[in-house]
Amino acid sequence: MEAKEQDVSLGANKFSERQPIGTAAQSQDRDYKEPPPAPLFEPRELKSWSFYRAGIAEFVATFLFLYITILTVMGVSTSNSKCSTVGIQGIAWAFGGMIFALVYCTAGISGGHINPAVTFGLFLARKLSLTRALFYIVMQCLGAICGAGVVKGFKKGLYMAKGGGANVVNLGYTKGDGLGAEIIGTFVLVYTVFSATDAKRNARDSHVPILAPLPIGFAVFLVHLATIPITGTGINPARSLGAAIIYNRDHAWDDHWIFWVGPFIGAALAAIYHQIVIRAIPFKSRT
Amino acid sequence: MEAKEQDVSLGANKFSERQPIGTAAQSQDRDYKEPPPAPLFEPRELKSWSFYRAGIAEFVATFLFLYITILTVMGVSTSNSKCSTVGIQGIAWAFGGMIFALVYCTAGISGGHINPAVTFGLFLARKLSLTRALFYIVMQCLGAICGAGVVKGFKKGLYMAKGGGANVVNLGYTKGDGLGAEIIGTFVLVYTVFSATDAKRNARDSHVPILAPLPIGFAVFLVHLATIPITGTGINPARSLGAAIIYNRDHAWDDHWIFWVGPFIGAALAAIYHQIVIRAIPFKSRT
Amino acid sequence: MEAKEQDVSLGANKFSERQPIGTAAQSQDRDYKEPPPAPLFEPRELKSWSFYRAGIAEFVATFLFLYITILTVMGVSTSNSKCSTVGIQGIAWAFGGMIFALVYCTAGISGGHINPAVTFGLFLARKLSLTRALFYIVMQCLGAICGAGVVKGFKKGLYMAKGGGANVVNLGYTKGDGLGAEIIGTFVLVYTVFSATDAKRNARDSHVPILAPLPIGFAVFLVHLATIPITGTGINPARSLGAAIIYNRDHAWDDHWIFWVGPFIGAALAAIYHQIVIRAIPFKSRT
Amino acid sequence: MEAKEQDVSLGANKFSERQPIGTAAQSQDRDYKEPPPAPLFEPRELKSWSFYRAGIAEFVATFLFLYITILTVMGVSTSNSKCSTVGIQGIAWAFGGMIFALVYCTAGISGGHINPAVTFGLFLARKLSLTRALFYIVMQCLGAICGAGVVKGFKKGLYMAKGGGANVVNLGYTKGDGLGAEIIGTFVLVYTVFSATDAKRNARDSHVPILAPLPIGFAVFLVHLATIPITGTGINPARSLGAAIIYNRDHAWDDHWIFWVGPFIGAALAAIYHQIVIRAIPFKSRT
Repeated sequence: MEAKEQDVSLGANKFSERQPIGTAAQSQDRDYKEPPPAPLFEPRELKSWSFYRAGIAEFVATFLFLYITILTVMGVSTSNSKCSTVGIQGIAWAFGGMIFALVYCTAGISGGHINPAVTFGLFLARKLSLTRALFYIVMQCLGAICGAGVVKGFKKGLYMAKGGGANVVNLGYTKGDGLGAEIIGTFVLVYTVFSATDAKRNARDSHVPILAPLPIGFAVFLVHLATIPITGTGINPARSLGAAIIYNRDHAWDDHWIFWVGPFIGAALAAIYHQIVIRAIPFKSRT
Repeated sequence: MEAKEQDVSLGANKFSERQPIGTAAQSQDRDYKEPPPAPLFEPRELKSWSFYRAGIAEFVATFLFLYITILTVMGVSTSNSKCSTVGIQGIAWAFGGMIFALVYCTAGISGGHINPAVTFGLFLARKLSLTRALFYIVMQCLGAICGAGVVKGFKKGLYMAKGGGANVVNLGYTKGDGLGAEIIGTFVLVYTVFSATDAKRNARDSHVPILAPLPIGFAVFLVHLATIPITGTGINPARSLGAAIIYNRDHAWDDHWIFWVGPFIGAALAAIYHQIVIRAIPFKSRT
Repeated sequence: MEAKEQDVSLGANKFSERQPIGTAAQSQDRDYKEPPPAPLFEPRELKSWSFYRAGIAEFVATFLFLYITILTVMGVSTSNSKCSTVGIQGIAWAFGGMIFALVYCTAGISGGHINPAVTFGLFLARKLSLTRALFYIVMQCLGAICGAGVVKGFKKGLYMAKGGGANVVNLGYTKGDGLGAEIIGTFVLVYTVFSATDAKRNARDSHVPILAPLPIGFAVFLVHLATIPITGTGINPARSLGAAIIYNRDHAWDDHWIFWVGPFIGAALAAIYHQIVIRAIPFKSRT
Repeated sequence: MEAKEQDVSLGANKFSERQPIGTAAQSQDRDYKEPPPAPLFEPRELKSWSFYRAGIAEFVATFLFLYITILTVMGVSTSNSKCSTVGIQGIAWAFGGMIFALVYCTAGISGGHINPAVTFGLFLARKLSLTRALFYIVMQCLGAICGAGVVKGFKKGLYMAKGGGANVVNLGYTKGDGLGAEIIGTFVLVYTVFSATDAKRNARDSHVPILAPLPIGFAVFLVHLATIPITGTGINPARSLGAAIIYNRDHAWDDHWIFWVGPFIGAALAAIYHQIVIRAIPFKSRT
C-alpha cells in the first residue's frame, strides 16, 4: 500500500503532467504543512548553546573556505606558467568543492550557509530570525578575514603583488557588467539552495537534504567557470570582504560595494522566484 | 520479510542472471503497472497553474543554462592562451554541470527537460501531452535566446568576433559528420534520461529519481568532451537556436538544421530503443 | 526498535571495532544468506528474452563507450596544442564518466559489465553462468569494434596517423611494465565492482547498488590518470580489441596479448581477494 | 505519523533555528544514545578473524592508494610539457578520487581509514582501541611502502631524478609554513571524516554513511589543490613515509617529521573541535 502510494507520488514528482490536473498542489500537500515563518526576534535563542555553536560552526567553515580557496588562487597566480598549476578550472573546483564539503559537514549544525547572501535569502523567506541572520553574517565575515589572513601569512610579498584573491571588476568590463554578473551568479546559487532544501520536497523524499550539498557545490563551481574572467567571482560577500580587508588596496575597495549589492539583489530575486512562482505561497491560504 | 523480499528483488536487479529465468519480466512487475500513455491533448492542463509554472521553470532553467555555458565559452575563446582559462574541459563541465544542477532543481516542477530533444523523446514515449511538449519547447527556446542575449550584452564586439558560442560544423568535417555526431550524442543523453527516470525502476527503488540528475549531467559532459571538436556540440536545439539568433551570421544559419534534425533523430532512436528493446512494451498485453 | 537495530548494525559497519568480537561475521549474516553459485550452463536462459536483451544492452553500451572515448582520444591527439583540447585529464574523464553513466543505465538490464574482465571476474565468483559470460564477452567485443569503426569513419586519415586510440606499451616501458600496470589497474576496477555490489552489503543497505556506479566509474578514471603514460590504459579487453581491429597495424597487434592476459589476471586476483579475504567464503559452512 | 515526525526532525536538522530552543540537544537524542568509548585494550579482538581482515584491507587499500597516486605524480613530473599530462589538477584528483573509491570499498571492513592521521583522530575520540589503532597504522605504512616501491620498479632512474613523489617543503616556504599547511589541511580532512560519519547523524538518517566517502574524498582533493605548491601535500603520514623510504634521499628525510607532527596535530584539533564544540560531549552527563 505504502509502496504504491509512494510510486504515485514520485511519478507525479517526475512527470508532473501525470498529476490530476488542477488539484496537484493540494494533493501534494497531503503530508506537508507550510511551516510558520520564523519570528524576527527570538529572544530564547540567545540563551541556547546550539545558537552559539551554530555561529562557531559558520566561523570555522568560512575560515576553512577562504583558507583553501585563496591559497589555491595564490598558487595559480604566483606561477609563471598556468600549465604547471591546477589552473583556473582548479580554482573553480576549489570554491565549489569546498562549499560541497562544508555544507555537508555543517548543514546539521547551522544550516551550512557559509555565505551572507544565502543567509539573507533564507531570511527573506523567513527561514531564520533576524537575530540569527545578523549573528551568522558577522561570524562569516570574521571567519573569512581570518582565513585570508592565514594565506597572507605564508607569503606576504607575493600575496600583495598578485592581488590577494580580492574581487575586482577586471579590465574591459564595466561596473554594470560586474554587478549583473554578481546578481545572476548569486541567483543561480541561492535558487539551487532553495530548490535543493525545499522543506516540501523533504516531506516527500526524506533523503533529499543529504544530497543537497552536491548541486549547491556544483552551482558555485559553475558560476566560477563563467564569471572568473569578469570579477573573479564573488557571489559571497564574506569571501569578498575577507580578501579585501587583508589585501586592503584602494582599487579593491573601489569596487567592493558590487560584491555586497549584487549578491543581495540576486539572493532576493531567487527568494522571490521560489516563494512566488515555484511555491505560490502568497496565493495560498494559511490555516 | 520485507527486507528479504527487497534483497531478492535487488539481487535480481543487479544480477539478472539470478532471476527465475523466463518469468523475470512478470515477477518484476509485481508492484508496477505500466502507466497509461499521456493523451495528445489535455485541455484541463491549460487551466492549471502548475502547467504555466512548469513552463516558467523551463524558461528560467534554459535561460540560466545558456547564460552560464555561453559565458564560459566566451571566456575561453577570448583569451589568447587557453592555459589561462578553464579550457575546453571547463566548457564541457559547464554544460554538463548546469544540466545536473538544473535537472535537480526543476525535476519536481516541470520534469527538468531544459532541452527540446528530451521533450520530444519523452513525448514519443507518451510521457506528456502534445500541448505540454509544444509549450515546453517554446519556453525553452525563449529562455535560450534571452540567456545568450545577456552574454552578448557583456562584450558585444568580442562576442561577434569569437563566434558567439553558436554551433557550426568545424573545418575538416562534413555536414554528414556533424549530423552523425549530433544523432549519437543525443542518443547518449536521451537514453540516459530514459534509463535514469524509468518509472518501473522507480517503483522498485524509490530513491532513484533523486540520483538521476547526476548520470544525466555526466552524459551531457561526456558528449561535449567527444564532439566539441566536430560541432561545438549541440544535442540541444534550444541551445543551438538561442546562440544562432543572437549571433545571427550566415555561416551559423547554414548548418542550423543539423542541430534540430540530429537531436530529434537521436532522441527518437533512444525512445525506440528504450521502449522496444529494454521495456519490450509492444510485446506486452496491457490490461 | 527497527531504527535502533539499524543504528547498531550501521555503527558496526562503519566501526567494525564495535562489533561483538568474534561473533561479528555471524551476527551480520542475520538477514543474509549466501546465494548459491550460478550453474555453469543454464539452458533455460537461452529461451528467455531477458537473456538476449541483456546481450543487446551490453552491445549498445560498449558501442557508446568506445564511440565517446575514442572520439575524445582522437580530439586530443589530432590537435597541435594539448591546451586547446580537453587534455589527457579529459580523456581519463571520458573513460571513467562513460563507465559511470553506462553502468547506471544498464545495471538493471544486464548487470552493466561493459568489460570482459568484469564479466570474467564475476564468472569466477560464480555470479553468472558460463553461457552468459561468453555471450556477454562476444557482444562487448562486437560493440567495441563498431564504436571504434564509427570514429574512424569521421576522419580516416588522421585516425590512422594518430594511433587510433589503440593500446600499446609506450616507449621507455618494457612489456613487463605494461603487463604489471594492466594487472594492478584491473585489480583496482574489479575490486571496486565486487565491493560496491556485494550482495551481503545490499542486504543491509538496500540503496547501495544505486550508488555503486559512482565509485566504479571513479576507479576507471583513476587508473587512467595513472597508467595512460604507460599503455594508454586498457583494463578492458573489449576496448583494446575494438581499437586494435579498426586500427589494424602490426605494432598494435604485437602488444595485444597484454591487454587480455593482464586484465584477466587482475580480475582473477580481485575475485580471489574478495572471496577469500573479505568474504572468507571457503571457511564458511554452507547450509 | 512517522512521515510527519521525520519531516520535523529533518527540518530541524536543516534549519536548526526551528528547533524548540534550548531543548534541541536533548530532543534530537531521542533515538540516539552516546556509544560507550572503545576500551584501550581489547584482548578479544586479537582472536577474531575480522580484526586481521581489517588490517589486511588497510594494507591493500593503502598499497593501491600509493600505487595510483605516486604513478600519477611521476607521469606528470617526467613529462617536459605539463599540458601533455593530466596536470597538477589531475594529481589532486588522483589523491582525492582514490580516497573516495577506497573508503567506499573498505568502510564496511575496517572503517576505511587508509591514513594514520584519521586513525589517530578516531582513536582520540575513542572510536577504536589502542591495539587496533596501532595495528592499522603499521599496516598502512607497510602498504604505502610497497605501493611506492612498485612505482619505482617501473622507471627507477626517472623516479629518483624527479623526486619520487616524496613530500618536502618547497623552495620559498619555511618549515613553519609547511607545518601550518599540514595542520590545517589535516584538520579539513579529519573534521570532514567526523562530520560525515557522526554516529548521531547516522541514527537519524541511516543512509548518510553511504554518501560519506564523497565529501571525504573531496576534502582530500581540495587540500591538494591548495597545498601542492607548499609541500606537495601530505596530510597522510603513511603516504609521506612510503614515498620517503622508497626515495630515501637526505632532503626528504630532513623535512619528514613535519608530515607526522602536522597531520597528528591537525587530527587532534579536529577531534577536539568535533567532540567539544559540535557534540558538546564533556558537558553532557552520561548515564
